[in-house]
Amino acid sequence: MAARQPLIVEVTRGPVVESLHQVMAVVTNELGSVTNWWGNPQFLTLPRSAIKMLQALPLLESGAAEKYGLDDKMIALACSSHHGEKDHLAVLAKWMEVIHSTETAFVCGPHLPYDQTAAHDMIRRGHKPTPLCNNCSGKHLGIISTCLHLGESPAGYDKYEHNAQKRLRKALTETMKFDHAKTAYGTDGCGIPTYAVPLQAIATGMSALINPKETGVRKSAAEHVLRAVKAYPFYVAGSDDFTTSVIEKSQGRAIIKGGAEGVFAGVLPEKKLAFAVKTADGAGRAAQVATAALLLQLGGLTEAEFKSLSKFTMPSVTNWKGDVVGQLRIAKA
Amino acid sequence: MAARQPLIVEVTRGPVVESLHQVMAVVTNELGSVTNWWGNPQFLTLPRSAIKMLQALPLLESGAAEKYGLDDKMIALACSSHHGEKDHLAVLAKWMEVIHSTETAFVCGPHLPYDQTAAHDMIRRGHKPTPLCNNCSGKHLGIISTCLHLGESPAGYDKYEHNAQKRLRKALTETMKFDHAKTAYGTDGCGIPTYAVPLQAIATGMSALINPKETGVRKSAAEHVLRAVKAYPFYVAGSDDFTTSVIEKSQGRAIIKGGAEGVFAGVLPEKKLAFAVKTADGAGRAAQVATAALLLQLGGLTEAEFKSLSKFTMPSVTNWKGDVVGQLRIAKA
Repeated sequence: MAARQPLIVEVTRGPVVESLHQVMAVVTNELGSVTNWWGNPQFLTLPRSAIKMLQALPLLESGAAEKYGLDDKMIALACSSHHGEKDHLAVLAKWMEVIHSTETAFVCGPHLPYDQTAAHDMIRRGHKPTPLCNNCSGKHLGIISTCLHLGESPAGYDKYEHNAQKRLRKALTETMKFDHAKTAYGTDGCGIPTYAVPLQAIATGMSALINPKETGVRKSAAEHVLRAVKAYPFYVAGSDDFTTSVIEKSQGRAIIKGGAEGVFAGVLPEKKLAFAVKTADGAGRAAQVATAALLLQLGGLTEAEFKSLSKFTMPSVTNWKGDVVGQLRIAKA
Repeated sequence: MAARQPLIVEVTRGPVVESLHQVMAVVTNELGSVTNWWGNPQFLTLPRSAIKMLQALPLLESGAAEKYGLDDKMIALACSSHHGEKDHLAVLAKWMEVIHSTETAFVCGPHLPYDQTAAHDMIRRGHKPTPLCNNCSGKHLGIISTCLHLGESPAGYDKYEHNAQKRLRKALTETMKFDHAKTAYGTDGCGIPTYAVPLQAIATGMSALINPKETGVRKSAAEHVLRAVKAYPFYVAGSDDFTTSVIEKSQGRAIIKGGAEGVFAGVLPEKKLAFAVKTADGAGRAAQVATAALLLQLGGLTEAEFKSLSKFTMPSVTNWKGDVVGQLRIAKA
């Protein structure tokens, strides 16, 4: 498929367009075939955290989730970039207990919670952030749980040759229909490999979650992931968040997940569609606005829902006093 | 001048180019004529905080700085986007005292100090940020001081029709050789107008600071600004900062200032050159890398200085554990 014009997201200040973002997007049907696109669908990119729902498949397919009796909040956290709020950390701590693991097993490194209230609370108490606060800690607990269930040592689970990464490459290769053993990779913010794939492969991968041709453990794992994320969107991100709000407001008609450097991916189960979005320059603000516009166009959000989420879908630019001085919007073609 | 290819700043992760920024740049000689450029020199943009040295001219030209006996740390702060560190706030508080003003006069709104240690310290003590913490508070004190010296009420100094803004438009029109009374404007983060100007006009404006044809109060004001910024780079930004480090390391051979949405502007007095830089998508990370490369090319930084500032000039991408997993760099043409 030839490249087309990308979506342009404008950042205005008063009557002036101050900055411009180029955003690529690909839409696939439930079988994973491309049905529409903006920009270059072959653009090689790193999906980062946008495909955590696919990275959670081995946790379910291996039987680990069942063995440890993980509840759907935990499954949602396995797919999350959580904000480190009290309720997130409580469920994660319970999960650690269930598998008799500790934070020393985590390779993801610490950072202050994304949630400002939680972060300021830690600072006030003089607490240092731990790896559990890392937005990816649920994904890491999923990987560690799978290893323990299969009788493997989780030590070195971030390494390319560890069985944990082999399982992830297998799941990603099968769902994206793109060979992950033959592509370049970088190290994600949380320490594990993230693989270079064409943008359209990310959308195809998401389609696997709603593909009627999937069977057996893959099908039930996909259904489980979507059920958990739909039931507990707070555990996929957090308070005052675009991803959480879209899933909640649409009641699961749009299930989305963001990743660093301007990536979004998701499925619209009722519309039998999936999508992937990437800002060429990596800006998350533009990926969010483009994803919102795409969801409106595809029917993942109704016009009323889109408007009620205007804080995220049509964000304002404000000054330090809080006055609205500009906006982010899709440029007219 | 016709548009040329912009500079491309790549963000890599492992062997993969994950994101790409387009950066425009214009170089002018000491008379303000364009000598070199990348991208479109006519690109209409908002200079934001990158021209604070020009915005400080009325403070000096009006005689306000002299009347109030402002020292060179205060003049540097008038040109600053300071980080709200203890030493910044102490000098700003002294300045407020000298002019018998209080923070209620400020329109800039509060935000936590940019400096993380200072911000965490405020959070720990349960202090709320005040307008003095705003990175622009020095500029605002300069504007208020000028009003008071001239016997004007500073009230409403952020309004387009206030004498303070008329003075700023006059100084910017004269230095940039671009009519600010006839161009669109937006509201800056700190509440005052920021005017839409071609990128090359920003470079031309900076040239006015080193233009040998300037005379009288303009010339002495320009020399005073450069002298103060060169003597006190910490008061122009703060600890662990690209701008402060470049001015310090080059011992004033490169005097630069950044602004929001990916703008940089500066002068190289010995080389008799000025420049302006703007990332099309507004990313500060790319503007910084492009500015560093430009300074190296123009001789504002020696190769040894550029390397010793590698943290800023050739920044690494790190994961949460602190491992280097990629870098920012200028793409090979």
